[in-house]
Amino acid sequence: MRAWQFTEVGAPLTLNEVPSPTPAADELVVHVRAAGLCHSDVGFLDGTLTPLLPFRPITLGHEIAGVVSAVGSAVTRFQIGQKVVIPAAIEGPGTSKNGGFADEVAVLERLVVALPDGVAFDQAAAATDAGLTSYHAVSVQGNITAGTRVGIIGLGGLGSLGSQAALALGATLFVAEKNELLHDYARSLGAAKVAGDITDFAGEGLDVVIDFAGFGTTTDGAIHTLRRGGRIVQVGLGRARAEIDLQALTLNEIELVGSQAGTKEDCEAVLGLVAEGKLSSRITEIGFEQIGEGIGRLERGEVVGRLVATFG
Amino acid sequence: MRAWQFTEVGAPLTLNEVPSPTPAADELVVHVRAAGLCHSDVGFLDGTLTPLLPFRPITLGHEIAGVVSAVGSAVTRFQIGQKVVIPAAIEGPGTSKNGGFADEVAVLERLVVALPDGVAFDQAAAATDAGLTSYHAVSVQGNITAGTRVGIIGLGGLGSLGSQAALALGATLFVAEKNELLHDYARSLGAAKVAGDITDFAGEGLDVVIDFAGFGTTTDGAIHTLRRGGRIVQVGLGRARAEIDLQALTLNEIELVGSQAGTKEDCEAVLGLVAEGKLSSRITEIGFEQIGEGIGRLERGEVVGRLVATFG
Repeated sequence: MRAWQFTEVGAPLTLNEVPSPTPAADELVVHVRAAGLCHSDVGFLDGTLTPLLPFRPITLGHEIAGVVSAVGSAVTRFQIGQKVVIPAAIEGPGTSKNGGFADEVAVLERLVVALPDGVAFDQAAAATDAGLTSYHAVSVQGNITAGTRVGIIGLGGLGSLGSQAALALGATLFVAEKNELLHDYARSLGAAKVAGDITDFAGEGLDVVIDFAGFGTTTDGAIHTLRRGGRIVQVGLGRARAEIDLQALTLNEIELVGSQAGTKEDCEAVLGLVAEGKLSSRITEIGFEQIGEGIGRLERGEVVGRLVATFG
Repeated sequence: MRAWQFTEVGAPLTLNEVPSPTPAADELVVHVRAAGLCHSDVGFLDGTLTPLLPFRPITLGHEIAGVVSAVGSAVTRFQIGQKVVIPAAIEGPGTSKNGGFADEVAVLERLVVALPDGVAFDQAAAATDAGLTSYHAVSVQGNITAGTRVGIIGLGGLGSLGSQAALALGATLFVAEKNELLHDYARSLGAAKVAGDITDFAGEGLDVVIDFAGFGTTTDGAIHTLRRGGRIVQVGLGRARAEIDLQALTLNEIELVGSQAGTKEDCEAVLGLVAEGKLSSRITEIGFEQIGEGIGRLERGEVVGRLVATFG
């Protein structure tokens, strides 16, 4: 079968012909129908995340949706022909094992989630990483429920999904986005107010701010914007280190909480919202043959929304 | 009656003869037996906190223990002769009203707490501010319970009380204190381990770190020391702004939570621990006549433990 593989730092992905996988007892094999391209893939190629890869050549692709094509002898929850997704996971395909930029991929049964009816493969693939990351930030770390007044900083891919998740959970949404070209889009999602900077919402009594940008100044701005006892969820990492107003955080008993990736349960919740029509990713679709050059497009920042390869 | 009063920024407290208070319907009058001197009092005199004072001259003193000497017509929970404390509060005596550096003080009934048997007036006065602040940080914001592995940064007055509160709640205690002269004291309190820097406890799987120092580097060190998902409670404010490792906080889902002062309920809990012999403040006692110069001793950093005036 075909597989896009990493070989060495600085080289593009290579399209190789490799043997099709056969499932171990606790694995199933998925015929891949959609695989999302991720900024982490850029990191695997440029050296920054390369140390995470356990061997080479290794097939990348960790945002996977498809159809079960074979099951191991100990598999109980899935059968051949069933639609599934594989949530992005450190121990999963495309990171610790050969991934989904291939016709087929083997995966441990316990990592797999059933795909609800009515969710397209491309939307499903996008839900496995950006979707679950933004949902985890909003629902788990942000503890957003009906009536929460939530500020979202940054309306990129994650911010857009986070905004939709917050609205689906019944929150009132305030969007802070520097790029004014995205303000109408924020309103179309259902934002109550839209501004260029989070501090423009000071006095609005925000309960939670989710910072999808992470430039330090955004965290600090959130500290000065929240109500007393409010919570900041840090997702974006535009900079590794940040200078913050520790005095204001302390005197107003603000909580600053990190949020990193998400769980299989978060992925199931996101797929439920997609199935209900409450959440969708903006997707740029490509074919299998464009995966190699797609990584370059991501690296150069040329992609609007999530880049997903559909095939099979 | 006698009263130590603030008159103008830069001037010392003035000992004046003033009329004794009479209680409004919802107030009681307390015959003061002990009044703690606080760094906030230094701030009221030197200009930094002066804007909080609503009128002048005003009698300072917001850490008050004594005996009820008169009750208003609507007072139901207290009677003359009862021992009470007045927890430090923004709307209370010594901040918004005439305070406890006087023979008597009037106070709203709802701000008053009964003093349990067996607690000395000087210990009670210390519990009203440092005690409730450290307890609030440990118990409420830190959510410390039996078995929690807690690191305390800074073994000054608040850190000592916080350490005792953590141990009383069943925590395992790790103390980080730069001053090695205090290490034996930390062990005598019951610390499992003592070190010079919080990062010396990396690998100990700390659940919570309470930072009573607040030099920025202490917060950052705590981020690099806690287990994944651990919590930092920020109390100390050695510096107003801090540079922190936002990447490590995010990727390890660390929580950084501010803690400011405490509530009447926190004060009651602290008094309970004092009554059980589980918590005590180190106190330097002075008489009523030394209150004026006592503020100067505080300002110059000459005081070990809490400075409490006992009289009446």
